Amino acid sequence: METILIIGTGKSSTFLIEYLANSAEKKQRKIILADQTLDITQQKSKQNPFISAVAIDLENEHSRKSIIQKADIVISMLPAFLHPIIAQDCLSLRKHFFTASYESNELRKMANDIKCENLLFLNECGLDPGLDHMSAMKIIHEEHDLGNEILSFKSYTGGVLAPESEDNPWKYKFTWNPRNVVLAGQGVSRFIRNGLYKYVPYHMLFRRIENIHFDEVGDFEGYPNRDSLSYREIYGLKDIPTMLRGTLRRAGFCQSWDVFVQLGMTDDSFEMNLPDSFSKRMFINTFLPYHSEEQVESKLLDLLPWVNTQTLEKIEWLGLFSDEELPQKKGSPAAILQKILEEKWYLSENDKDMIVMQHLFEIKTKQGIKSIVSSLVCKGENQTHTAMAKTVGLPLAMAVDLFLEGKIKAKGLRLPVIPEIYNPILDLLAKENIIFSEAISFKK
Amino acid sequence: METILIIGTGKSSTFLIEYLANSAEKKQRKIILADQTLDITQQKSKQNPFISAVAIDLENEHSRKSIIQKADIVISMLPAFLHPIIAQDCLSLRKHFFTASYESNELRKMANDIKCENLLFLNECGLDPGLDHMSAMKIIHEEHDLGNEILSFKSYTGGVLAPESEDNPWKYKFTWNPRNVVLAGQGVSRFIRNGLYKYVPYHMLFRRIENIHFDEVGDFEGYPNRDSLSYREIYGLKDIPTMLRGTLRRAGFCQSWDVFVQLGMTDDSFEMNLPDSFSKRMFINTFLPYHSEEQVESKLLDLLPWVNTQTLEKIEWLGLFSDEELPQKKGSPAAILQKILEEKWYLSENDKDMIVMQHLFEIKTKQGIKSIVSSLVCKGENQTHTAMAKTVGLPLAMAVDLFLEGKIKAKGLRLPVIPEIYNPILDLLAKENIIFSEAISFKK
Repeated sequence: METILIIGTGKSSTFLIEYLANSAEKKQRKIILADQTLDITQQKSKQNPFISAVAIDLENEHSRKSIIQKADIVISMLPAFLHPIIAQDCLSLRKHFFTASYESNELRKMANDIKCENLLFLNECGLDPGLDHMSAMKIIHEEHDLGNEILSFKSYTGGVLAPESEDNPWKYKFTWNPRNVVLAGQGVSRFIRNGLYKYVPYHMLFRRIENIHFDEVGDFEGYPNRDSLSYREIYGLKDIPTMLRGTLRRAGFCQSWDVFVQLGMTDDSFEMNLPDSFSKRMFINTFLPYHSEEQVESKLLDLLPWVNTQTLEKIEWLGLFSDEELPQKKGSPAAILQKILEEKWYLSENDKDMIVMQHLFEIKTKQGIKSIVSSLVCKGENQTHTAMAKTVGLPLAMAVDLFLEGKIKAKGLRLPVIPEIYNPILDLLAKENIIFSEAISFKK
Repeated sequence: METILIIGTGKSSTFLIEYLANSAEKKQRKIILADQTLDITQQKSKQNPFISAVAIDLENEHSRKSIIQKADIVISMLPAFLHPIIAQDCLSLRKHFFTASYESNELRKMANDIKCENLLFLNECGLDPGLDHMSAMKIIHEEHDLGNEILSFKSYTGGVLAPESEDNPWKYKFTWNPRNVVLAGQGVSRFIRNGLYKYVPYHMLFRRIENIHFDEVGDFEGYPNRDSLSYREIYGLKDIPTMLRGTLRRAGFCQSWDVFVQLGMTDDSFEMNLPDSFSKRMFINTFLPYHSEEQVESKLLDLLPWVNTQTLEKIEWLGLFSDEELPQKKGSPAAILQKILEEKWYLSENDKDMIVMQHLFEIKTKQGIKSIVSSLVCKGENQTHTAMAKTVGLPLAMAVDLFLEGKIKAKGLRLPVIPEIYNPILDLLAKENIIFSEAISFKK
């Protein structure tokens, strides 16, 4: 009997656990759910005799290893910085290791040892990174097989609200880790456009947007995300003139979010310790110039003259111009802003989230320049069965299942960019109604 | 015979060495000059039998300690990150320690031991920090002694060009460490204004400027510098409603420098590796959006519509719109920009630099609100005898001299904010023509 250990059983693991649990009896597999506290895991494990729950003390090597020892395969759904510790344990105990997170340098250093031990360590097998790689690689390989040259590849993904739940001026709520949303885009984004390298500093990011349209759900804005350049090699597109990976938000979001970026309210580098009586209005004023008479609103417009009425409305809706008490006085500006947003951008029980993904290719063919626009729209069911949890969890669960079935034979440190991995996963996802629609056009 | 060890004998040590050398024979003191390479130090030590030169291997504890052992007092003119190492050696060998750099947390951790060993470790005894503290504390103590309350204290310092050497559109050249100039202001600046905390992110810094006028040399711009809040306690101004420390540049500089900040060209967080053929125009274009037809100049104006003709002229003068070859292809954007600037902003042999400092006080007295504007203008002599080297080196040299003379008796980890230290130094500086002029006015 094979044993799958899932470490980290929060909201994002719902679909992952359900998918593997559904076939546990039939395939005679044991599933162990491990988390720092037992209550959630216990709840998720009840009523299925093939699932057990256990508390894991991540800082205690003995605790970790005694649990990992029981498994054949380990899935880490922990925050990314914890992966290298678990991966190291897996390596020394000779267990396969799967995550939906970016492959880290620490993991890369283990690559040789992973190969020598004949293990599979598969990363970036969730949504973004994950499904984006798989769906794009399928097209890239098909085009290369036809002898065509890919001139431009842009790929955007967003975790947003389903249109029916867009009931606030931001048309946005937290459908995923709020901290990651607040800090999104920090650092310098890099991409290549018509052979020209482009570097975008964080404070320019939300102004360097592209409009992205989905026939089914309307207009979005995409901004460049991290280091697009490094993916040229992974995707086998070393000499591609245009390549960009980005993040999608509903049209209008970026200009408003940019206000927080411009004012320094997303800064996570220092701690504030504000007086007890501090209001939200005082908080935003802290990032505005002093003026003996001018109001917060007019100082904001003086400093950022391009801000429009819709943006002012959005900021007002968050209460940032009001005398409401600041919900948190201590912490970085980003942490305090996050707290304000969490009170406003919470997902109600019946709110539905949505994943939107679009790949835009320009391809040189014998028949002329072919454009492929490949789009995915996936809506969530409710607050717990989100599209985010589904699109992150299912590809990972499927990869684990296929590996245990012997249908994925690859070993070593891997990404899901090879047909052996992406083809069966994309087929299984189609059965779950996670399907890309393709629009193809030609110009001569 | 007492021995003074000066570690770090670069350009900034010229006046420091000369001042101490001049009285070495009379006061029967030995001076040891130590640097990583011998040639400069040897040159500086020739023709004075009381001065010797020695090469120091800073990474070698034995090399450091064997040299430090010979001294009674150590002056470190090394880059600031090296001070803790030297300070630790001084502590274990029981030597007094002097620098012109900011007191670091590492030094603060040694404070008790320094006191127990009855040593003096004096930091921030140069220009800024240094002379700014001393000249301000004299006024603050005088006003407190009169029973007056200081409502506002703003203090600006700049290392700029003397007006007669302002022969380029920027009216600026490197009179000090170019790297520090390029990276100046990175991080978040904090200050307090009329009781309101203000936080300014780096990308807003060069727009949050105040005009500062000097009767003698005209108009400058001041921008907030680092953490002004922490100085409230050091200056004994814990409840002051307005306090700001800042940096001065010639009027018009900040808007132009802001272009580099906005585009991300001062970023030091990542390495670029540009093709051999890269021109300066291509370099700036790398930070601008892609457009199939629009030129670099018009894209710049589209992105930063507030940029005026004078600013465009300044950027053009640096060659950034030209096809001139980029002088460095590898390095961070900041490093490459620095190289471009170094070729244009070099100090010619007869160029004169200038130090400008201004303290602006608002003081509540029985007679009404008193304003004090205390200004210093100090011009350099030439490329090597700069005002910067003078105003950094002389206060430090004087402090060492006064300490050895027994006129400064303080021990422990100190800043020059006590009358025992600042009074005699300010008196000696006046003899060197480093004099503050005060303009006092009242409003009832």
